[in-house]
Amino acid sequence: MAADSVNEQRLFPAARLREFTAAVFRHLGVPDADAGLAADVLAAADLRGIDSHGVARLHTYFDLLVAGRINPRPEVRVTRETASTATVDGDNGLGLVVGPKANEIAMDKADGAGTGWVAVSNTNHYGIAGYYPLRALERGLIGWAMTNSSPGVAPLWGAQRMLGTNPIAIAFPGKEEPPIVLDMATSAVAYGKIEIAHRAGKPIPKGWAVDREGGPTTDPRAMMDGGALLPLGSDREMGGHKGYGLGLMVDVLCAVLSGANWGPFAPPFAISQVLPSRSVGKGIGHFFGAMRIDAFRDPEEFKAQIDALVRTLRGTRPAPGTNGPLIPGDPEREAAAERTRLGIPLLPAVVADLLDISRRTGIAL
Amino acid sequence: MAADSVNEQRLFPAARLREFTAAVFRHLGVPDADAGLAADVLAAADLRGIDSHGVARLHTYFDLLVAGRINPRPEVRVTRETASTATVDGDNGLGLVVGPKANEIAMDKADGAGTGWVAVSNTNHYGIAGYYPLRALERGLIGWAMTNSSPGVAPLWGAQRMLGTNPIAIAFPGKEEPPIVLDMATSAVAYGKIEIAHRAGKPIPKGWAVDREGGPTTDPRAMMDGGALLPLGSDREMGGHKGYGLGLMVDVLCAVLSGANWGPFAPPFAISQVLPSRSVGKGIGHFFGAMRIDAFRDPEEFKAQIDALVRTLRGTRPAPGTNGPLIPGDPEREAAAERTRLGIPLLPAVVADLLDISRRTGIAL
Repeated sequence: MAADSVNEQRLFPAARLREFTAAVFRHLGVPDADAGLAADVLAAADLRGIDSHGVARLHTYFDLLVAGRINPRPEVRVTRETASTATVDGDNGLGLVVGPKANEIAMDKADGAGTGWVAVSNTNHYGIAGYYPLRALERGLIGWAMTNSSPGVAPLWGAQRMLGTNPIAIAFPGKEEPPIVLDMATSAVAYGKIEIAHRAGKPIPKGWAVDREGGPTTDPRAMMDGGALLPLGSDREMGGHKGYGLGLMVDVLCAVLSGANWGPFAPPFAISQVLPSRSVGKGIGHFFGAMRIDAFRDPEEFKAQIDALVRTLRGTRPAPGTNGPLIPGDPEREAAAERTRLGIPLLPAVVADLLDISRRTGIAL
Repeated sequence: MAADSVNEQRLFPAARLREFTAAVFRHLGVPDADAGLAADVLAAADLRGIDSHGVARLHTYFDLLVAGRINPRPEVRVTRETASTATVDGDNGLGLVVGPKANEIAMDKADGAGTGWVAVSNTNHYGIAGYYPLRALERGLIGWAMTNSSPGVAPLWGAQRMLGTNPIAIAFPGKEEPPIVLDMATSAVAYGKIEIAHRAGKPIPKGWAVDREGGPTTDPRAMMDGGALLPLGSDREMGGHKGYGLGLMVDVLCAVLSGANWGPFAPPFAISQVLPSRSVGKGIGHFFGAMRIDAFRDPEEFKAQIDALVRTLRGTRPAPGTNGPLIPGDPEREAAAERTRLGIPLLPAVVADLLDISRRTGIAL
């Protein structure tokens, strides 16, 4: 569709979008500091080129806050703790606020006990998983983040959406080399790729999705219309049981451990979607980890070895038709450099969403 | 090849193989308790149907001990620690001994600090990763285990073996339902599957491996002859960057964090293979984690919710031509039940290996 073409994207300075986002959250009753935090998380997604998780989602947060489905002033509470752990109740606040606060608790625990691990319930969509380990890097820590999400993925050999795309993120600092930053969904692809193929009227590769009967499909419509995404690995022969197992691991750590809704009962992040048939916990769940490097090894030695590993991997003989392996985090860092310079490209539909919010709040875009 | 057909397998009682294994290790100078531990780890693989990691590998451990390449009497030492962490030097002992001891340290740390995390260097092949979280389950803990291994996998877009099959294992206990036990390599398939196809004279599916030029191949010989396995997800379109990222994560946690050899420098687990061009640490590395459930949530509530999640997943509408989703650990548990009853089936080549050890040690099989 022409409206989605790159040519029609408009560029916005990252700072301007960030200010708009913070003002919108403040307008909806979110305290100043929390609104700034939430805007930071969305801005990180736009800057790093993960367009699906940035201001493109602001209207959904807006809708849920206006409808009273998210608490603008949550009291984020630790309900259980040990030297290295905490369980956090997010009080149904924005995931964009609950997430950073819970991540902070994990990092504080690590300062004291060597590592910190925090399971969070009663929260919702927390933006890009990669945001959280990046904060840990700023404090010289190794950071982990996972979250469950509303069901979109079929377990291997299943014909129903039972798990979210349940991402895993982790980051390791280098000395002179940029950090290794892994941020990956445990599904074969993101739902956004199905939508893009659908809008373009193109088939999707076999292995991305099943139709409503659970059979393989190359029709994006068949996935969207009651079908499901496939886990990383896709089918049995290629390791689909592994992607399914990883998605399940994330679900347990985020939701079962914290007391959130797991599996098919994770509530949707959209005002229009039907709520699950029953509730088995509170909201969705996150899981954060932080590890002090000096709890294991001299940090300077560690970082020097990361540099050596990164350089060794970059020195791999390239496969035909490629420039050789990347390091996890390379594409996002390149996007951030370009977008800092040029601005954030937004599709017309996203701009229209932001203008709608602007009109309804009186906040100038 | 007929010699590998199931019909020619011989059945051995698990206890007999376990006793033989322990006696062989004792014969090679491994102290009684350690020999029993090592035999336990190998026996767990055979019982759970992971034939590549059980007594089929005994001859390799035998060769390495006889050649003085493994220390039969290691002094496993904690070189650095905090409340929730330890770094362990395995003193070049058997991974089958160093692994269980380091795992124990992680569990002891968890008892004190809520969680325990142990990075291990100067060790070697530790058997099946799944063994370690199963021990944690016996102590009512959630257990994690990872290990790096000698290079066999190409990073996405690479034409060289740079990472091991670097497995991840984790287990969660149920109340009435059996536990969820994930134990997966981060490659698309195990090397063993390439060997099986080669012996059978059959092609391998596209997506498992590349040839020595880094191009896709369906010829098992082309992988074995200087090619490489592909990471889980196989190619860019199907998420090969994710499997590569996970394998890299395991390498960092196991080897960079502990001071072991990472990436292509991980030493081979075989007497005949060429040693890496240089050493960047000590031996290979493992990473263990243990989490007290009550550090996060009431354990009875947690287990009841795991039961509910497991039953929900089992209730998924099946995909056509399948019986519906399994739970990670199902196949291994079924194998263990059958093999406890009937014995461990060994291929003629494995029996010949054991008979060779028997002849050289005077220990009756």
